[in-house]
Amino acid sequence: MCGTCGCNVTHADSQVHESVVVLKGLLDENDHQAAHNREHFDRHGVLAINLMSSPGAGKTALLEATIEALSGRFNIAVIEGDLETENDAERIRAKGVPAIQITTGSACHLDAHMVHGALHDMDLQGIDILFIENVGNLVCPASFDLGQHLNVALLSSPEGHDKPAKYPVMFRAADLVLVTKSDLLPVLGDFDPAEAERYLRQLASLAPVFELSARTGDGMHHWLDWLEQGRA
Amino acid sequence: MCGTCGCNVTHADSQVHESVVVLKGLLDENDHQAAHNREHFDRHGVLAINLMSSPGAGKTALLEATIEALSGRFNIAVIEGDLETENDAERIRAKGVPAIQITTGSACHLDAHMVHGALHDMDLQGIDILFIENVGNLVCPASFDLGQHLNVALLSSPEGHDKPAKYPVMFRAADLVLVTKSDLLPVLGDFDPAEAERYLRQLASLAPVFELSARTGDGMHHWLDWLEQGRA
Repeated sequence: MCGTCGCNVTHADSQVHESVVVLKGLLDENDHQAAHNREHFDRHGVLAINLMSSPGAGKTALLEATIEALSGRFNIAVIEGDLETENDAERIRAKGVPAIQITTGSACHLDAHMVHGALHDMDLQGIDILFIENVGNLVCPASFDLGQHLNVALLSSPEGHDKPAKYPVMFRAADLVLVTKSDLLPVLGDFDPAEAERYLRQLASLAPVFELSARTGDGMHHWLDWLEQGRA
Repeated sequence: MCGTCGCNVTHADSQVHESVVVLKGLLDENDHQAAHNREHFDRHGVLAINLMSSPGAGKTALLEATIEALSGRFNIAVIEGDLETENDAERIRAKGVPAIQITTGSACHLDAHMVHGALHDMDLQGIDILFIENVGNLVCPASFDLGQHLNVALLSSPEGHDKPAKYPVMFRAADLVLVTKSDLLPVLGDFDPAEAERYLRQLASLAPVFELSARTGDGMHHWLDWLEQGRA
C-alpha cells in the first residue's frame, strides 16, 4: 500500500506493514478534516464541487465558460490546485470571481487540510457554488475526500475513450463525467463517446455522461442544467 | 511529505515525521532495487527507456510506430504499466514484440520492484532497447527510479504548452521531451511549441524538444535518430 496515494504498490515486504499503518493514519486524519470542511460548506449553504481530470483536460477553461454562463444567477468561488504557478487563479479572477490558489510543490493531489487552509482566506458569505479544481492527475486525487458534495471527472476527448477502463478508481468516484473538447471529436475520428460510456457502465457507475466544448459552447447547457439541479 | 509519491503534502503535523521516515525507507529500497535493475540491463547490453506522460498522451501509439520504423534494425521489448487492463501489452504483441503488462491496481506509478518482477518473465538476450511505459500520470512516476538509462516525457499538444511550468518535477527529470499529436496543432491553434520549450528552459532543462505525430509519421525521424544515438 503506497503512502498517502492510497495505492496498492508492491514495495519491499519489510516496508509494507509500516506504510499501511501510516497511510491509515493519514486517511483517517484527512477524512476527519474533510467532514469539518463539509460542515463549513453546509453552514454557509454552499454547494462544493471537486473537479478532477488529467493535466490539460480543460478544467479551467470549463470554469471560465461556466462563470460567464451563470453570471447573475449564482455567486461562484474557486479554489485552484496546481503543483506550481498562480496562473489558473489569475484566469478565474479575471472573470470577476474570487479564487484562492493552492500550490502543492510536488504533491500529486489536494487534501482536506490544504482546502481547509484555503478556506481561511475565503469568505463564503453569499457564495452559492464553490468549485475546487484539483491537481491534474487521473489517479491520486480520487482517494482524498476534500469535503466536497459532488465529484466531477473530465475526460478529454484526445485522451481516448478507454480511460474509464484504465483509471477505474477515478471514474468510479465520479458523480458526473464530462467528455471535454468535443469540438475535436470530428478531427480525432477514433474517440467514440458511446464506448467511453460503455467502459464507465462496466464499473457499475450510474453517473451521467455529457459531451461539451468550453471553446464553442456546444453541450454546455447539459452541464449548466446539472449544476442548477445540484443547487435545487 | 506524502508517502511514496514523494510529494510535500501538508498533512496534519502529527503525521508528517512518521511519513518522512517511511518515505525515506521506501525510496532507499526503491533506489537499491533500481540499481540492481540497471546492472541487469547493462549486463545484457540493453538500453532501457522510461516513457512518462499524462493519460492518453500517445505513449503506446508512439511505441507501435517506433517498433514498425525500427523493425530489422533493433530488437525491442516493452514493459507496460497500467492500473488495469492488458490492452497496451496486447497492442505491442500484435506488432511482434515481447511485452509484459504490469497492472498496478490503484497505484499511481511503476516502481523498481514491479519492474524487477516483470524482468523475471522477460528474456533480455538479444534485446537492444527496452521501453518501460509508465502509468499515465504527470506527477508521481518522476520520483521513482526504475533502473532506466533515459527518461522521455511526452507532452500531448491538446494539454497546452504551459505544462512544463505546471509539472516541473516531471519535466526536470526528462532527458527528452516529445510534443505528441502534432497533427492537431493547426486545429488547436493555441499550442505554441516555442512557448512549451521556453517553459522547459525556465526549469534549467537542456533536454531536446521534438514535435511528432505517431499517426501521420511527421517528425518521427528526430525521435528515431535520438534512439540511434542512444544506442551508439
